[in-house]
Amino acid sequence: MFATGVAMLFPLLCAVIYHEAELRVFLLNGLLGVVVGGGLVLLGRGRHELGTRDGFLIVTFGWIVVALMGALPFWLSGSIPSFSDAYFESMSGFTTTGASILTDIEAQSHSMLLWRSLIQWLGGMGIVVLSLAILPILGIGGMQLFKAEAPGPTPDRLTPRIKETAKLLWGVYVLISAAEVLALILSGLSPFDALCHTFTTMATGGFSTRDASVAALHNPAAEIIMIVFMFIAGANFSLHFAALRGRLKDYFRDDEFRTYLVVILVAATTIFLSNLRLTDFSIGRNLRGSFFQVVSIMTTTGFCTDDYARWGSMPQYLLLLLMFIGGCAGSTGGGMKNARFLIFMRHASNELRKLLHPRAVYTIRFNKSAVPPDIVTNIMGFILLMMIITTLATFCMTLVGLDLVSAFGSVAATLNNIGPGVGSVGPTNNFAHVHVVGKWVLTFCMLVGRLELYTVLVLFAPEFWRKH
Amino acid sequence: MFATGVAMLFPLLCAVIYHEAELRVFLLNGLLGVVVGGGLVLLGRGRHELGTRDGFLIVTFGWIVVALMGALPFWLSGSIPSFSDAYFESMSGFTTTGASILTDIEAQSHSMLLWRSLIQWLGGMGIVVLSLAILPILGIGGMQLFKAEAPGPTPDRLTPRIKETAKLLWGVYVLISAAEVLALILSGLSPFDALCHTFTTMATGGFSTRDASVAALHNPAAEIIMIVFMFIAGANFSLHFAALRGRLKDYFRDDEFRTYLVVILVAATTIFLSNLRLTDFSIGRNLRGSFFQVVSIMTTTGFCTDDYARWGSMPQYLLLLLMFIGGCAGSTGGGMKNARFLIFMRHASNELRKLLHPRAVYTIRFNKSAVPPDIVTNIMGFILLMMIITTLATFCMTLVGLDLVSAFGSVAATLNNIGPGVGSVGPTNNFAHVHVVGKWVLTFCMLVGRLELYTVLVLFAPEFWRKH
Repeated sequence: MFATGVAMLFPLLCAVIYHEAELRVFLLNGLLGVVVGGGLVLLGRGRHELGTRDGFLIVTFGWIVVALMGALPFWLSGSIPSFSDAYFESMSGFTTTGASILTDIEAQSHSMLLWRSLIQWLGGMGIVVLSLAILPILGIGGMQLFKAEAPGPTPDRLTPRIKETAKLLWGVYVLISAAEVLALILSGLSPFDALCHTFTTMATGGFSTRDASVAALHNPAAEIIMIVFMFIAGANFSLHFAALRGRLKDYFRDDEFRTYLVVILVAATTIFLSNLRLTDFSIGRNLRGSFFQVVSIMTTTGFCTDDYARWGSMPQYLLLLLMFIGGCAGSTGGGMKNARFLIFMRHASNELRKLLHPRAVYTIRFNKSAVPPDIVTNIMGFILLMMIITTLATFCMTLVGLDLVSAFGSVAATLNNIGPGVGSVGPTNNFAHVHVVGKWVLTFCMLVGRLELYTVLVLFAPEFWRKH
Repeated sequence: MFATGVAMLFPLLCAVIYHEAELRVFLLNGLLGVVVGGGLVLLGRGRHELGTRDGFLIVTFGWIVVALMGALPFWLSGSIPSFSDAYFESMSGFTTTGASILTDIEAQSHSMLLWRSLIQWLGGMGIVVLSLAILPILGIGGMQLFKAEAPGPTPDRLTPRIKETAKLLWGVYVLISAAEVLALILSGLSPFDALCHTFTTMATGGFSTRDASVAALHNPAAEIIMIVFMFIAGANFSLHFAALRGRLKDYFRDDEFRTYLVVILVAATTIFLSNLRLTDFSIGRNLRGSFFQVVSIMTTTGFCTDDYARWGSMPQYLLLLLMFIGGCAGSTGGGMKNARFLIFMRHASNELRKLLHPRAVYTIRFNKSAVPPDIVTNIMGFILLMMIITTLATFCMTLVGLDLVSAFGSVAATLNNIGPGVGSVGPTNNFAHVHVVGKWVLTFCMLVGRLELYTVLVLFAPEFWRKH
């Protein structure tokens, strides 16, 4: 809350520059965050020993409260009159989803658009730390495999270690962001657009300052820069950290990064080749468009440069499959993650081989060491849970009147933190028309998806609340 | 081949009664089947000891050859001019799928329509024996759980035991079929329609003699009779066998049957309640329509009395989910089967409980005894394989130009042996417009789905062909 309050200085400053009336809203909300958040920080001083259960509670309620802080400026300024809509938009920001209920983005003030982009960037910052410093300790969904190699004093005391890791990762995050802002300005974008799009690229969030997304910028150089930075944001940040310290080879030693790279190259090349038959699509645009859409969807960013509905059904189907794979663990990307996908595929291939040789024993290797069976079970449980939530949430969305494709599409887009779905919530549409109950279901999907399912769902188990 | 040849006597007789020119085609084809098939029977006499590998080969190639026999009359008579189409229709018959490439069913001659229905009935006969007498011995996809309790002389000699079980099951199948023909004639259907619809009800196949399926009969009594018999055909035939010997309680002692019953009741009641808001739908028609569609889809029959697209998206979504569950093991129904669904759900719930209590050990119970872990693995492998085949086959269908929904719908409808899919291959359409390559992909899906995946796919493993 404190940090969110402080972060409101950015839109405040923006409102000053552009002489916008939203100045007061950001001032009041900023103060609220700083005072209440600061008060809570002071109250909690000295109590630093936290257990696993505290971890689950802090993370889940942290995201819920921060999304509320993010929603207040939208709601109080009247730029999003409905509270449900404002909360949806804010949760979509902090979870780096990018699903929007705005029907006319360009009518928003500069300060509001900056705030909308900034909350994605802050959410992305939270996610990197969460997935590399906190979730591995909580033992969530096989995240133990991706522990950041941060120099922590003692492994049993959580707080100092998390702080140390967080600082290092944030440094990397800020550094890469700065590089992107610079590159985008050099490509010809206005500093405002460069900043906003950097915030949402680095978060793999996908909010744009234009209704027609990145296509509206009409800037091929900027598109290429975004392809590069979306790709970076979708990869594990501890690899970037290693790279900045000179260990560039780590990228290619990492099984997950290799999977991520190969899937993107194969998918983009297939779509590029398939698009060659479109006569009104020059080879250059096709190459850029194919790679842009594949990277944007695979990293769960959700930026758009082309109406891929006209590319035919095979490219669309490939993009749909990529949505479920998502980014890498320890990135700002959503979805199942490449590491889980890889382990799932290796597990599946072993299971099928077992049918021919029932007595054979197979182990799954990841980054040259055997994956312990309980982590494999954990990952399979994760994928199972994802299927169950998708099935149930889709049922809810059909109840509030969405057609089958849009119901499934809206759940897939929010649970995987992508943003635009398919059907009536597709890239050329938005979520404004969804029934208010449906909006809350999808808001819940964004939260559950972003916090790797277990972090949230474990709070619903009666065992969690029993005294230990 | 011999049996298929003999079976051509029925359409032959029908052609005589209605003075149809197809008489010659059935006479020639029947003779071909009897002579070649009979010759092979004579050649194979005395060699009765078959191993597991022979089992896989006989079953798979048996279905391929028999579908060829079934296709010849369609093709040679010119009623289906393209060979690919004729083979598609015949495979759809023998696998009791019910997907059709016919655009004008009512233009076909009586003898052709009878043949089209009869091959479904013969296919259903084959499936009951396959799933209760052969697959359990081959150890396919957890089918060991559903072994028919037939009095076989020695368990290690396959042939006499299979023969004995087959005879008993066929007796049950013929008896129930006779009851349905009688009931349908009493309801006012012509003997021809009664016979054809009985053949395809008992097989849960779903071929009708009318373009508009069962709706075109305009006979509420017949619809109710079909609901009852579809339900019977979708349940395990060894339970019917027990019931005919007086052990009626066996139905309710069976975990799978109870699941089957509960899923149907819950789904049909939900849809009935949801349809109450449709003002032009009387309560009686709604009740009949809801139960008819749920039973028709759940048993993978595919008959249609209502255009359920207008029921809204929640009922459609429920029907879509039912497609994947399908009938019971040991029935003529397709899909994953209720027993696998039940074990999958119990496994899933255990996996989720394990996340809270990592060291706890859970066992899965089915019909009061613990399911061995290797059978659970087998069933999970089955479901996994189903997902992989669906994903790959859908990719193939998008390549030949189907839109996303129809591509997925056509694969789901054929792999689960349902018949009508969704989108452009939905209940009010047919498969005629699908590209010829797509038709062969779907034909393969029907075969693979019908033979419980492994039976066919094992033939593609190099290990299968190595000398042991």
